[in-house]
Amino acid sequence: MTRVAFVGLGAMGLPMATNLLARGFIVSGYDLSSKALDSLESSGGHRAGSAAEAATEADVLILMVVNAAQAEAVLFEGGALDALRTDGVVALMATCPPAAVEAIGERVREAGRRMIDSPVSGGVAGAKAATLTIMAAGTRDTFDRVKPVFDALGDKVFHVGERLGQGAMVKTVNQLLCGVHIAVVAEAFALATKVGVDLKILLEIMSGSAASSWMLKDRGPRMLEPDPEVTSAVDIFVKDLGIVLDAGRDTKAALPLAAAAHQMFLAASGRGEGAADDSQVIRSYLTLNGSK
Amino acid sequence: MTRVAFVGLGAMGLPMATNLLARGFIVSGYDLSSKALDSLESSGGHRAGSAAEAATEADVLILMVVNAAQAEAVLFEGGALDALRTDGVVALMATCPPAAVEAIGERVREAGRRMIDSPVSGGVAGAKAATLTIMAAGTRDTFDRVKPVFDALGDKVFHVGERLGQGAMVKTVNQLLCGVHIAVVAEAFALATKVGVDLKILLEIMSGSAASSWMLKDRGPRMLEPDPEVTSAVDIFVKDLGIVLDAGRDTKAALPLAAAAHQMFLAASGRGEGAADDSQVIRSYLTLNGSK
Repeated sequence: MTRVAFVGLGAMGLPMATNLLARGFIVSGYDLSSKALDSLESSGGHRAGSAAEAATEADVLILMVVNAAQAEAVLFEGGALDALRTDGVVALMATCPPAAVEAIGERVREAGRRMIDSPVSGGVAGAKAATLTIMAAGTRDTFDRVKPVFDALGDKVFHVGERLGQGAMVKTVNQLLCGVHIAVVAEAFALATKVGVDLKILLEIMSGSAASSWMLKDRGPRMLEPDPEVTSAVDIFVKDLGIVLDAGRDTKAALPLAAAAHQMFLAASGRGEGAADDSQVIRSYLTLNGSK
Repeated sequence: MTRVAFVGLGAMGLPMATNLLARGFIVSGYDLSSKALDSLESSGGHRAGSAAEAATEADVLILMVVNAAQAEAVLFEGGALDALRTDGVVALMATCPPAAVEAIGERVREAGRRMIDSPVSGGVAGAKAATLTIMAAGTRDTFDRVKPVFDALGDKVFHVGERLGQGAMVKTVNQLLCGVHIAVVAEAFALATKVGVDLKILLEIMSGSAASSWMLKDRGPRMLEPDPEVTSAVDIFVKDLGIVLDAGRDTKAALPLAAAAHQMFLAASGRGEGAADDSQVIRSYLTLNGSK
């Protein structure tokens, strides 16, 4: 029986931990929110008083925290790493910049533990349905060790490379494509608006042509609404395209499209619309062009 | 029985004209290439000695020429417009800038004829299989008149607006999305290359995630080949993103992503790679970054 420590029981983490419990794993969880700990407990999980307590005697320590700084705080300041079994594995599943993941991995190695760099995509829906995509990098041995845990969380589990940071880079590339795809739909619709083309017909045509993308079909309809329900906020892409650009700086890669797209999300956030649905990046274009 | 004059029997035009013949239309064609005229004749079409001869007594004059300048030359200098029946319709199906289409339409109207702005997408494969997408703008009456002809050429025939130029704008938007989608895949792959991620696994993951696009799935595999077969050349997007940017200038719309993508295709062409497959825009990124 594998004992899993789960730190970070937010919108993604809680359903992930619940799926582990449903598959028979022993889960000890920690989060700052006592409400999240209540939920975990009611699903059969153990409520830990700290990240270090959760990690004690665990085989796998999953970090589903907000960012790299939180992961570092949990591991190195909170004492979770030292509490972990010496043959235990740290699974860093939060979205972090590749260079930060490399650096964290180095410190984990120095402390005599192993790490698997394993961010996810698929959102809250994927977390709940256990259909996440998991992009894992680390030694083959470490990957094989943690694979049963990943299989309980997602149905598309990939070993993308042996080097820590490569998983984070795949996730980074994923966000680069997603963010630019949303922004370019906004750019295209804003252009069409200038000559009064019916955007509904335009969307229908584009959805069935070589111009289609997953984001066009998902965010396109919401761009036609003035104030759609928030599925994912503008500020998520302010952060994630920020990570993309950091990865470009760290590796010295030119990213002209990602940089331009980031500006449009950033400006939306600057106008006070960071909590709006990310489809509303179209307002940056409409504002810039002086349309309606 | 509808008599169709077909000017421009290239890679797209010839199979389109052949489909019209197969559906029972009377087709009189013209092209500078006598080989193309031979092909048309062997399929049962009439070989005209000039565009004006092809247009004589035609109900519909289809222009499938290279650009707006050629369309103008055929209509106004070659005498095709005057040769057309007074109740005849000009179907401008070539990809042209929206503003040029508007201007041509104005001259056609002054000459007492009607025009339908009706560019296509779907490429040579769509032209052959009669599965083109046709984005038609013009009065409802004119659209209805020409609809049977369009139905012989494509299976996704849309009336996108009443105003000439709106069809061209939908096609322009289509090309904006297609061009940026190709370039952003190249940008993403070039970034991943920097940390040695296996691009085949990356492509597999992205194809099944929210990062997917039609172009990712189509051009992505060809980006991994050093010298793939040419399905569509770099120079096509040098031209088409050029039209996109012209449309942005004409309507005064900011297009930061399209402009950045255009630079990468342009530079590829400048390095003498304009005839390469458009997936090879990735070489612009690799060259820029000094990768391999």
